[in-house]
Amino acid sequence: MTDNEQQRHRFYEETLEVKPIFQGRMISLEVDTVRLPNGETSTREIVRHPGAVAVLALVDNKMLVVEQFRKPLDKVQVEIPAGKLDPGEAPETAAVRELEEETGYRARSISHLHSFSTSPGFAEEILHVYFTDDVEKGELKLDEDEFLTCEAITLEQAMEYIRQGRICDAKTLLAVYAWRLRTVTGSF
Amino acid sequence: MTDNEQQRHRFYEETLEVKPIFQGRMISLEVDTVRLPNGETSTREIVRHPGAVAVLALVDNKMLVVEQFRKPLDKVQVEIPAGKLDPGEAPETAAVRELEEETGYRARSISHLHSFSTSPGFAEEILHVYFTDDVEKGELKLDEDEFLTCEAITLEQAMEYIRQGRICDAKTLLAVYAWRLRTVTGSF
Repeated sequence: MTDNEQQRHRFYEETLEVKPIFQGRMISLEVDTVRLPNGETSTREIVRHPGAVAVLALVDNKMLVVEQFRKPLDKVQVEIPAGKLDPGEAPETAAVRELEEETGYRARSISHLHSFSTSPGFAEEILHVYFTDDVEKGELKLDEDEFLTCEAITLEQAMEYIRQGRICDAKTLLAVYAWRLRTVTGSF
Repeated sequence: MTDNEQQRHRFYEETLEVKPIFQGRMISLEVDTVRLPNGETSTREIVRHPGAVAVLALVDNKMLVVEQFRKPLDKVQVEIPAGKLDPGEAPETAAVRELEEETGYRARSISHLHSFSTSPGFAEEILHVYFTDDVEKGELKLDEDEFLTCEAITLEQAMEYIRQGRICDAKTLLAVYAWRLRTVTGSF
């Protein structure tokens, strides 16, 4: 649907007021007052986010993953390499950059797998997931406040990590599903 | 890993201060000051969330989906039925409740498919996804500020909705992947 079609949709919520609450390093928060389809007003709590990328990278039929501490979950987690978009950065460029920074592998070619909303009820974030099995040695380069280790795991290990709860985030679960489907059917 | 093992992990970030920023109807926001593994301090912006449930419900081999407007995306989206946990509510109870409220179908039996973090970089939210293909007619009951319509779609329609961008959220993409895998292999 075009923007115009969205605005004519019977469920469209017109924004009456935007109240900024917080502007942080990673996210910002606002509370919008909206007109509901029935004419009443309500509020919507919205987390603004620049968008992010992640990469399903297969090297010798093993998936590159990083282990890192996730403060919102207070847990160490295993995930596919990922990161925020820099201002003005194209998702594909960010995907190649993040993969190399976090794993030391540079993608010679990369393809778009899917883009999805992580939490459409309260967050604007869109996550763009890419696929590559065409990599060469590059240069590891972590951010100052980034602590992680990289490993390459088989599909069986990935399934075991899911059972153990070491893998438990949307993008990595999706990547493993896509990988399983590709293993069974030959394509995504 | 146990909590104790997490705290001894070399990447663990100790919380030095919690600064509450906002307490809303759906989410709250805090900024935590943490001690990094290298001894430096940094801040983490964290969205607190009670957790949510979603249901992959198949009726005559069609998936029940709801169409609704998502203010954070400013778009009408097609998703599997989902909703927040009520205080103290078990995820399975919430899944049965949300399915019936949003689609009018009551699950006679239901099984856990997976639980995942939607955005481990900034959000605490865990989404519990359930599966059922065993439903009976129940009672539709929408929240006051909830406007949506339900339909049942085939796997081919779901794939077409994904191509069109009408389906573009993590839980529904995951549900469709799970459904495809079950169609091909006979199990999840």
